[in-house]
Amino acid sequence: MGKPLLQIALDNLTIEDAINSAKKVEKYIDVIEVGTILIASEGKKAIKALKEAFPDKIIVADGKIADAGKVFGKMFFENGADYTTCICAAELPTIVETMKVAKEYKDTNEVQIEMTSNFTWEQAKAWKEANVPQVVWHRSRDSQASGVKWGEKDINAVDRLSKMGFKVTVTGGVALEDIKLFKDIPIYIFIAGRSLRDAENPELAAKAFKDEFDKYWS
Amino acid sequence: MGKPLLQIALDNLTIEDAINSAKKVEKYIDVIEVGTILIASEGKKAIKALKEAFPDKIIVADGKIADAGKVFGKMFFENGADYTTCICAAELPTIVETMKVAKEYKDTNEVQIEMTSNFTWEQAKAWKEANVPQVVWHRSRDSQASGVKWGEKDINAVDRLSKMGFKVTVTGGVALEDIKLFKDIPIYIFIAGRSLRDAENPELAAKAFKDEFDKYWS
Repeated sequence: MGKPLLQIALDNLTIEDAINSAKKVEKYIDVIEVGTILIASEGKKAIKALKEAFPDKIIVADGKIADAGKVFGKMFFENGADYTTCICAAELPTIVETMKVAKEYKDTNEVQIEMTSNFTWEQAKAWKEANVPQVVWHRSRDSQASGVKWGEKDINAVDRLSKMGFKVTVTGGVALEDIKLFKDIPIYIFIAGRSLRDAENPELAAKAFKDEFDKYWS
Repeated sequence: MGKPLLQIALDNLTIEDAINSAKKVEKYIDVIEVGTILIASEGKKAIKALKEAFPDKIIVADGKIADAGKVFGKMFFENGADYTTCICAAELPTIVETMKVAKEYKDTNEVQIEMTSNFTWEQAKAWKEANVPQVVWHRSRDSQASGVKWGEKDINAVDRLSKMGFKVTVTGGVALEDIKLFKDIPIYIFIAGRSLRDAENPELAAKAFKDEFDKYWS
């Protein structure tokens, strides 16, 4: 799988602010996430604006689709998304519908399952059997705030998902010093949000992540 | 609890279209839902526009919040929502944060948990212990399309949730003839979406729902 990709999560409230945040790290990032917060704030036009501003980056519309996969899939992919997310609570037909719509727009379009701790391994098995390509291991922002740290539970779950054959994204307050915790696992994408957006020098902060990837993955 | 309320789900793609849909049934509906599809399409301004157009109705922003309860709660309640939804996969701190923000805006603001079949009764118990006031029993649109009908499983779950003390909303392709299935349960809200929006005469269709409520609840 090679080195992990670096994704910036744009949970800004305005498109302008989001584009500014991404421009500062453009040189080092591979994937740009139009965050759920940004979509709720500005609507689908945010996806279009980010794709137009960064046509060479992979654009993830973090829709956390829970139902109506066809409607949301169409909305996100026709506005330029390369990947979109379904929330783990979504029922399988919703995930399958979203995947079907993805491929109608572009062969390389893919769907990710956004995971909270409220999932079962039976569900993960069902996703795999349905050929879901990607999952996102997500430590919730609100759980972080209530003191939940990265731990064995996260590492083991990420490892297990990777061994099941999913391309795994890791997100949820990922700091530079957390990267090495995952060094023995083929991580597809690490997401950094506030640790890039709020950095004094976002470009250097992004470079530091990539250097860390170089150190631990070949 | 008295008679159920009638909610129209506005899963339109534009605000103008949504307002038109709601105007046609204004006389008979109690609750207007700014659907997840409409929020993703137009952004938070859809909530504001619907509240301004219908200041006397209860406005539900169907955000299906999965994380960042404080950010989404602020966004939705400051734009005029009376209720918002958290998806069942959300972790408890997210739900608690959303409830806290709700009350900062208005005493009567409330949070609903949007349920898919991927939940556990342990979660439901935890919601109750956290004083979550409302749940939404949701038969998914994609599951409906793949042939899942209303059945004993739905009725029993709705009954159990009601007996746990939640105010329960029932949604997911609710047709007029489905209403009587729930007649022995104190339902707080029935949601109708396409069965009102796509009706030849939406006002008469809404009236027919209310007549059905009068027949089975006192």
